[in-house]
Amino acid sequence: MKISEVGEFGLIEIIKNMANRKLSGGIGDDCAVIDMGKEEELLVTTDTLVEGVHFLKNTDAFNLGRKSLAVSISDIAAMAALPKWAFLSISLSDMKLEYVKAFMKGFYFLADEFGIDLLGGDTTKSSVFSITVTLIGVNEKGKSVKRSGAKVKDSVYVTGKIGCSYAGLEAIRKNIDGYEECKERHNNPYPRLKESFSVKNYASAMIDVSDGLLQDCLHICECSGVAIEIDFDKIPFCDADFVDKENMISGGEDYELVFCAPVKYDGVLNSIDNVTKIGEVKEGFGVSVIKNSKQLNIKRLGFKHF
Amino acid sequence: MKISEVGEFGLIEIIKNMANRKLSGGIGDDCAVIDMGKEEELLVTTDTLVEGVHFLKNTDAFNLGRKSLAVSISDIAAMAALPKWAFLSISLSDMKLEYVKAFMKGFYFLADEFGIDLLGGDTTKSSVFSITVTLIGVNEKGKSVKRSGAKVKDSVYVTGKIGCSYAGLEAIRKNIDGYEECKERHNNPYPRLKESFSVKNYASAMIDVSDGLLQDCLHICECSGVAIEIDFDKIPFCDADFVDKENMISGGEDYELVFCAPVKYDGVLNSIDNVTKIGEVKEGFGVSVIKNSKQLNIKRLGFKHF
Repeated sequence: MKISEVGEFGLIEIIKNMANRKLSGGIGDDCAVIDMGKEEELLVTTDTLVEGVHFLKNTDAFNLGRKSLAVSISDIAAMAALPKWAFLSISLSDMKLEYVKAFMKGFYFLADEFGIDLLGGDTTKSSVFSITVTLIGVNEKGKSVKRSGAKVKDSVYVTGKIGCSYAGLEAIRKNIDGYEECKERHNNPYPRLKESFSVKNYASAMIDVSDGLLQDCLHICECSGVAIEIDFDKIPFCDADFVDKENMISGGEDYELVFCAPVKYDGVLNSIDNVTKIGEVKEGFGVSVIKNSKQLNIKRLGFKHF
Repeated sequence: MKISEVGEFGLIEIIKNMANRKLSGGIGDDCAVIDMGKEEELLVTTDTLVEGVHFLKNTDAFNLGRKSLAVSISDIAAMAALPKWAFLSISLSDMKLEYVKAFMKGFYFLADEFGIDLLGGDTTKSSVFSITVTLIGVNEKGKSVKRSGAKVKDSVYVTGKIGCSYAGLEAIRKNIDGYEECKERHNNPYPRLKESFSVKNYASAMIDVSDGLLQDCLHICECSGVAIEIDFDKIPFCDADFVDKENMISGGEDYELVFCAPVKYDGVLNSIDNVTKIGEVKEGFGVSVIKNSKQLNIKRLGFKHF
């Protein structure tokens, strides 16, 4: 059997189930949570970006360096923790030193902005350029927001806009002029750490939108044992007019946050900038999208590797 | 300028020097050390293995899984800390699921033996199979042994034998029958965590032998600002007779430990199994090897990526 027959999430499930020991943390959230005693917990996330899969050959080096850290910060933000220490492993061919320097400038640029220290890593030779970032964050014990806490009747919220990164990627791919903001959103996603801290005391479950809005809502459903119903017309879509909105909800790399919260917090959450209520947690399982009082027929939830 | 013109260590130096902020830890040891308050410190190491560079295509999957964790445990052992939590990122083509399962069996086998929990990671598609392991360990505050503590007149010790992995690799490459122990040492390096804990209260500086005995001694010299003089005839070489001993001291992947310790501990250290005194720390800089009262002319210190 090939990996593609079980899929990316199937593969992860198989790897999890092969463990012989009871794990002290657990695989499945945006970050692993490690209990560090009375006061603190550590959050750890690892992300790999591969040339030709996650980014095109000749992608601007500064942007790529910035983005490779941004996606990890987004994972820490998804659990409402503070990113602190980064580890960078780069596999590369004998490329130009100037490219690597520009890449590192982008990486350090965002690291400085978020107060993150690069503490180590590895450099290896490879015919395919790839980048693995491990980022460690900290949180007050018990304060990390997991995917598993959503309760029936909770409201479902999203930060920012959905589909800008997908539209940006389409505009780049098809050489469409304009749509600079979308292109920028694709090339330079900005982690929603500030928003995360604004909502952390209200959120029952949270995840970042990396695979696609629907796919990531489904992750919350799976971990919380609930269903999520999204009101299509309430989704704060990107303005780009050349992309079908139904593709935007399954296009990945928004790096916005989706979170659930008890209805009693609707007032305070609706008053926060850049936060929009898009649906409700229901009994059952899975994600449904309602448009004009009818359930939308969803063809594709989000991006899959295999 | 190409990366090969500055070399692997030159590249790391450039990356370090580009940081705009004073780092709370530091790049340069086997692991980064993160201060976690009064009692504990965290040790973090990241290693990437790439097909065609670190291992051959069709390498036995179980062995590869085991080895990819072993090299990281060895880094934690080099600082005399306890390995605890692992993160595994694998980039792979659409290969057979059975191969990945066998790989994971090997990984979990060693994880179980050392009490390590796999807490997370990433799976991505790539045309080149590569593995990045991030391993986090813990230590009592201030007890991690660094590369930087060697003092003039300290004794220099090594654990186990030197050159077995190199001999094993040569035997595999050249299809030489026999030498099973060497081949096993190459395929299944066993991290010297037990030895590390036996010597941790005496060692002033320590490193694991991954790049090659001389290269790794040079890392201690660089970090401690000292010279190391090795007595060639005292090195506990591998018995394999078809490999030149002078190649063994620059052949990598022994995953033994080299450490320095004050002379007053010679008695206790010489009584520990599998620990051999091979030289002395001197004033000055660099590594020299004395054979028959003459300084050996060293052509190659160890393995370099670029």
